[in-house]
Amino acid sequence: MAYIPLNNDFPGILGLMIYRPETAGPLNELTELLLAGDNTLSRGDRELIAAYVSRLNNCDFCGTIHGVMAARQLPGGASQVEQACTNPHAADVTPKMRALLDIAALVQQSGRAVTQEAVDTARNAGATDTEIHDTVLIAATFCMFNRYVDGLGTFAPPARTDYEPIADALLSLGYSKSVQAIQG
Amino acid sequence: MAYIPLNNDFPGILGLMIYRPETAGPLNELTELLLAGDNTLSRGDRELIAAYVSRLNNCDFCGTIHGVMAARQLPGGASQVEQACTNPHAADVTPKMRALLDIAALVQQSGRAVTQEAVDTARNAGATDTEIHDTVLIAATFCMFNRYVDGLGTFAPPARTDYEPIADALLSLGYSKSVQAIQG
Repeated sequence: MAYIPLNNDFPGILGLMIYRPETAGPLNELTELLLAGDNTLSRGDRELIAAYVSRLNNCDFCGTIHGVMAARQLPGGASQVEQACTNPHAADVTPKMRALLDIAALVQQSGRAVTQEAVDTARNAGATDTEIHDTVLIAATFCMFNRYVDGLGTFAPPARTDYEPIADALLSLGYSKSVQAIQG
Repeated sequence: MAYIPLNNDFPGILGLMIYRPETAGPLNELTELLLAGDNTLSRGDRELIAAYVSRLNNCDFCGTIHGVMAARQLPGGASQVEQACTNPHAADVTPKMRALLDIAALVQQSGRAVTQEAVDTARNAGATDTEIHDTVLIAATFCMFNRYVDGLGTFAPPARTDYEPIADALLSLGYSKSVQAIQG
């Protein structure tokens, strides 16, 4: 049970967004833009950055749902996501994605942990300035979401299968419309 | 100079918002709602939470601008803000605000650092559920902004006086319209 009564039984951020729809609006709009908007980074790669940061923050709800989302988009599926989240340097990802995941891990520690060298490594591996910008902002955004979800003690379903219908809604309707749809 | 060319000379998050106006939209909308929207927490108290978390994250730009914003709203001005940010338990703030600042400091560490006990302490000091929710989300949001601003190596002007005109714009126009106004 969450630390405050949310007056609904939805897990993770869903319960929070139903509790406070005013703030859910811009939060979903931001997520939609960053993870699903037009971008030279693939949808799968962006969901992977979200999943990776969420797992570094030990946020079960966000780590699982964005891991499921990434697995549906990436050619290597769930095993590729698992490998990238646990050992990105041995994972089947491009050198560019490896460098972007390294930047995301630095952002997870602190904004001040990111260096010009880490950014240059990504650029030398082919990352554009906008891709570097978006990687930093996706990683920072999930440092927010993870703190929001766990800082209010929300419930994370233990079974991966519980996240599949949420992923269905997010993929078919997008982030902004899914909360209303899931709420019914 | 920032880690990527922003094609403008504006400091801190201003330069980032001008570089990427698409994401600036929901980011400003969220900040406007959380810090300036209708709320039983005063504007000054909410800006103080933002300043406090930013200082815990060693983010000079956000710590200074939100410190200036809080100082303009709180009866004790800049010295009250300084005291609250450096030693909240000795500061001239209500027991409720002290408990909310404690929650914000836990969120800054990690979402998982927040406890039911910390939430109950705030509730026993008079905080409502929505106030507790908003405190967690404000603290989490500034963990995002601080990482965004420093993770891309933006410039923070050293003099407090450089932040006064930015505070003027934010107070008169709000967060969403100030970026365009400052850009001119």
